[in-house]
Amino acid sequence: MRPQEIIAKKRDGEILSRHEINTFIKGVTDGTWAEYQTSALLMAMFMGGLAVDEQNALTEAMLNSGERLDFSEIDAPLADKHSTGGVGDKTSLIIAPTVAACGVFVPMISGRGLGHTGGTLDKLEAIRGYNVNLSTEEFKEALKTCGFAMSGQTAKVAPADKKLYALRDATATVESIPLIVASIMSKKLAEGLDALVLDVKTGSGAFMHNLDDAKSLARALCKTGNAFGVKTEAVISDMNQPLGKFVGNALEVFECVKILRGEIDEQMHQTLELSIELAARMLVLCGVEKTVQSSKFKVQSVLDSGAALEKFRQNIECQNGDPLICDNPESLLDKNLIEVKIKTEKMGFITEIDAGAIGESISRIGGGRIKVEDKIDFAVGYECVKKLGDEVKSGETLGVIFCQNRAQTHLIYEKLANAYKIGDEEPSGKFELIKEII
Amino acid sequence: MRPQEIIAKKRDGEILSRHEINTFIKGVTDGTWAEYQTSALLMAMFMGGLAVDEQNALTEAMLNSGERLDFSEIDAPLADKHSTGGVGDKTSLIIAPTVAACGVFVPMISGRGLGHTGGTLDKLEAIRGYNVNLSTEEFKEALKTCGFAMSGQTAKVAPADKKLYALRDATATVESIPLIVASIMSKKLAEGLDALVLDVKTGSGAFMHNLDDAKSLARALCKTGNAFGVKTEAVISDMNQPLGKFVGNALEVFECVKILRGEIDEQMHQTLELSIELAARMLVLCGVEKTVQSSKFKVQSVLDSGAALEKFRQNIECQNGDPLICDNPESLLDKNLIEVKIKTEKMGFITEIDAGAIGESISRIGGGRIKVEDKIDFAVGYECVKKLGDEVKSGETLGVIFCQNRAQTHLIYEKLANAYKIGDEEPSGKFELIKEII
Repeated sequence: MRPQEIIAKKRDGEILSRHEINTFIKGVTDGTWAEYQTSALLMAMFMGGLAVDEQNALTEAMLNSGERLDFSEIDAPLADKHSTGGVGDKTSLIIAPTVAACGVFVPMISGRGLGHTGGTLDKLEAIRGYNVNLSTEEFKEALKTCGFAMSGQTAKVAPADKKLYALRDATATVESIPLIVASIMSKKLAEGLDALVLDVKTGSGAFMHNLDDAKSLARALCKTGNAFGVKTEAVISDMNQPLGKFVGNALEVFECVKILRGEIDEQMHQTLELSIELAARMLVLCGVEKTVQSSKFKVQSVLDSGAALEKFRQNIECQNGDPLICDNPESLLDKNLIEVKIKTEKMGFITEIDAGAIGESISRIGGGRIKVEDKIDFAVGYECVKKLGDEVKSGETLGVIFCQNRAQTHLIYEKLANAYKIGDEEPSGKFELIKEII
Repeated sequence: MRPQEIIAKKRDGEILSRHEINTFIKGVTDGTWAEYQTSALLMAMFMGGLAVDEQNALTEAMLNSGERLDFSEIDAPLADKHSTGGVGDKTSLIIAPTVAACGVFVPMISGRGLGHTGGTLDKLEAIRGYNVNLSTEEFKEALKTCGFAMSGQTAKVAPADKKLYALRDATATVESIPLIVASIMSKKLAEGLDALVLDVKTGSGAFMHNLDDAKSLARALCKTGNAFGVKTEAVISDMNQPLGKFVGNALEVFECVKILRGEIDEQMHQTLELSIELAARMLVLCGVEKTVQSSKFKVQSVLDSGAALEKFRQNIECQNGDPLICDNPESLLDKNLIEVKIKTEKMGFITEIDAGAIGESISRIGGGRIKVEDKIDFAVGYECVKKLGDEVKSGETLGVIFCQNRAQTHLIYEKLANAYKIGDEEPSGKFELIKEII
């Protein structure tokens, strides 16, 4: 069947058969479909949508385009968490060691950041020597040894997704629920999991700005995961401000180690709260804990006992990183950075924060990537001093930029200052971190 | 402005500005837009449609992507005819010399055939030595000398269209009215015409199968032509059977020379009728004739006097072809071909003919192209013995295949035989060749 015929069918609103979707993904994988044919079909799928059967067929075809990891030799439940991406979203570094400390194995295949969102791999590389490019064998070895492993997607897992994602990014076909679902789930299903918890973000710093879109995405992800035999649950969490205290790679690792060490301050509390929620649900989905409440106690206990920190240390050693950061998290910080305070001229209450603008600003000075090929500066970042709902006085500090030079500050100061809206009245509603469980 | 932003805007149903459309076409022309980005936008345009302003902006941008022909030194009206493509559609070879014989210059830039339709350039190349690859200077010289010239599009005319058309063909984005309009009109407007008559075909052998689609296309073409200052009219003509007697390159040239010589038979009558209609309207639009009726007399007179045939002879000499075909049209025919009759087993009346199937069959044995890179066999073809509405007896001949060997016959016999539907009752309505003038 020629690519044109399959493209024309989707273009005209028809439902593609499993065979047609397999033909498409085979053509993408082996290069017999030209990129311009693939992008035309992606646009037709974006504009026309996909039925449930098509979405599952697409996910399965992408999954089958590469190898599945085989962890059958591990005699314990396997669970993972995936976030749709946000600003200051660093929970993976707390969740993986915590859940591992509770006896559930976490084979966490992660990605890199682009635009306003950070990526777990970039954060891990802020740890000197940490290797995120494990072979399948090394990954399995690290997982068996430490109870969790964190690595980039190998070329062998869902290769069709790599090609499709690069094209989608260049052709404005990213924000499509069925395409997002197929992309995420084809990789996660390759991990051979028992359970998967999804952290679907919504708000100014998320791909899904509004709650309804986030819910639709969450439902579609859960439906697909469960259809493939993986117990899947989604937590819809707030991304109307950066999560926790810091934005920036080394600074975020610092925040996580502080939390794992129990050295927590007010701004970090959100990060801990969301990590506990997600970790607890992973244990329940695996059948290791009966209720979310009992599970949260369990999670809190391995944090309090230092068992989670020990797991993290063990993993860092296993993946060639410098474990001393666990004893001396301050060693992650670059003492030569300039600190510039963002101050408010108004007094009142913080009613809105444009988390996306904060993420973009930090990317702009090297903390993330504007384009895929950009190099990361692990040291730079931002501290969120004031959070949503906080009362501020004129001249008070809203946040602090950590940067290499004044020129960087000029580039982003105004954007950061404008990211905050300050009103006269105290906001009435609560800013809820956990919006809904799907 | 990045390609993604322009693509996203069209994807979301917004109207693109003139500047955005210029950016797109500039990017296509200079190669800064990747082909996969172009095809994604083409699909978004196909599915979302274009507003009138966008369509005109696209046409203008494509026109401005290349050079315009300058015929200001010719002190006479300039007119052209363009057909949307059909099976056995050979009127250009009659119209160009006829209109030229009436004192109107015809700078006819033509194309090649693909799929079930033939192309004027392919037909002309069936004349030994005829050069369809004229430079701009040679084209102008031939036009001045003979009153008409027929050549392929140079790389300098609307280069964006060449790239877009190749992509559209490979990505199922051909059948879009605004994209068709921009493609046709960007080339025709480069000819610097006073008047343009469009032959928009509808039926089983046309791109537009139904009359309403053909009307929409005709209206859009006329609107754009007139918006750019070219007097434009469209004739909607029937393509529910091959036009006239023959399908196949040399055979079609043969039919045209016979008509120009006044040696016409019943099957050829349609070809003459449509040629006169289109030629007459070109003269009226140019202001050379007052009414279509008087214009038809004028056209008939230059056919009867042999003046049109002389113009054709002069042009063939001018473009290096063998003018002897004008005296001995039979010299165009290959005497070594095998003739195989398609016979009907049923008796009754011919109620339907699948002209597309006949076109495809002849392409299949080399008379046209299935793929762009296919080589043409100028000799092979098909004779339409019986036409729509004709009464047939069992065992009678419907048509004749002219081919190189028996193997070719086996390939297409059944498809050709099945192209005819024979009913018991005489069809009540007339089969009108000219359906509507727009």
